[in-house]
Amino acid sequence: MGERDEVKLLGTWYSPVVLRAKIALHLKSVDYDYVEEDLFGSKSELLLKSNPVYQKVPVLIHNGKPVCESLNIVEYIDETWKSSGPSILPSHPHDRALARFWSAFVDDKWFPAFIAATITKSEDTKAKGMEEVEEGLLRLEDVFVAISKGKPFFGGEAIGLIDICLGSFLVLLKAKEKLNGEKFLDESKTPFLCKWADIFLSDEMVKNVVPEIDKVAKFIREFEDRAQSVASRS
Amino acid sequence: MGERDEVKLLGTWYSPVVLRAKIALHLKSVDYDYVEEDLFGSKSELLLKSNPVYQKVPVLIHNGKPVCESLNIVEYIDETWKSSGPSILPSHPHDRALARFWSAFVDDKWFPAFIAATITKSEDTKAKGMEEVEEGLLRLEDVFVAISKGKPFFGGEAIGLIDICLGSFLVLLKAKEKLNGEKFLDESKTPFLCKWADIFLSDEMVKNVVPEIDKVAKFIREFEDRAQSVASRS
Repeated sequence: MGERDEVKLLGTWYSPVVLRAKIALHLKSVDYDYVEEDLFGSKSELLLKSNPVYQKVPVLIHNGKPVCESLNIVEYIDETWKSSGPSILPSHPHDRALARFWSAFVDDKWFPAFIAATITKSEDTKAKGMEEVEEGLLRLEDVFVAISKGKPFFGGEAIGLIDICLGSFLVLLKAKEKLNGEKFLDESKTPFLCKWADIFLSDEMVKNVVPEIDKVAKFIREFEDRAQSVASRS
Repeated sequence: MGERDEVKLLGTWYSPVVLRAKIALHLKSVDYDYVEEDLFGSKSELLLKSNPVYQKVPVLIHNGKPVCESLNIVEYIDETWKSSGPSILPSHPHDRALARFWSAFVDDKWFPAFIAATITKSEDTKAKGMEEVEEGLLRLEDVFVAISKGKPFFGGEAIGLIDICLGSFLVLLKAKEKLNGEKFLDESKTPFLCKWADIFLSDEMVKNVVPEIDKVAKFIREFEDRAQSVASRS
């Protein structure tokens, strides 16, 4: 791409899905301006104009044109800065289909279960959610073994789509483990995923853009306290 | 691709999402074996083995390797039979991102509203759903005008991803209009979408693979009667 590329990312510092865009931009060595949004205060005009349907972050704005939805943004970055850095999606159509399928599984099936397991109040919903979270991680352990073929990442030697997608939730998982003592990533059940998580979070391309676990834990605690106080007032 | 390609599609005749795979295969002139699944009876071993996570159709099996989820299958077909027929996804990354974004909008936001508007029993949910269906269609009308640029399809001169995605629901829409007298596609509100729908359904690539509206309407009526009788017995 030309030198006059203007790249802007609208995000919030704690958002796992914003982290996906940051990692992808970092992998492709793309310079960008980062704009922090205040989702609890008032959203910027730029956000409302750029993502009128969902009014959510992340939004990537490239030479004035917005791209929304985190996995869509990651694919856009991969396709736009094709020759810069390793490919985020595999080259063979079947491997690409698998990467898209399992990333959608993480977002559409596994993460909603995680939310049910950690945020809902009903004990039944929580227990069912926790069961699905564990089942999902066992499934992803099998997927990792099958497609990484002894290499460090889902993407093989380099970080790929599933790595970015699942990896973006690791800090949230670890913050939740710290706060509530639940164990999500368990060495005895998913040893390969545990090892992968360590390698992913300490990778050069990742470690400088992920938020600190303690800071995220503090943010979650404050958010939950606020929600609690609103609920008890109503 | 080589002549020895073995392509199998697991589906049900009435499913809009299965229709997507059929249209994409047709656009790319791919020969395939179609296997009709009985989702109300017992699912085939092949389906359970090929899509263990969701156990749903469509599943495309190409030389023994399964691909699941309809939009994922369409992208796979586009990438695998690249040089055969026109591209289903646009070539520019930003246009591709738009095609993926609006297709996901149809599946994740518009279609759930359609289901709420037509299937739920509560009058409030129905009315809210109907409002969202109409809002969604107005939005898609604007998208059509913006990206088709006077050409017949969302994809321009040829059928593209959004055409296949939204177009796959047209028979269901028309069957529902026939059954219940609701009006979804209204000339006075979304004239461009109405015209697009006619062109899409009468296109050579589409008209031989879509199910008949009357047959789908009869299927829905029988399905609803059965659901009603189960509900009144319990």
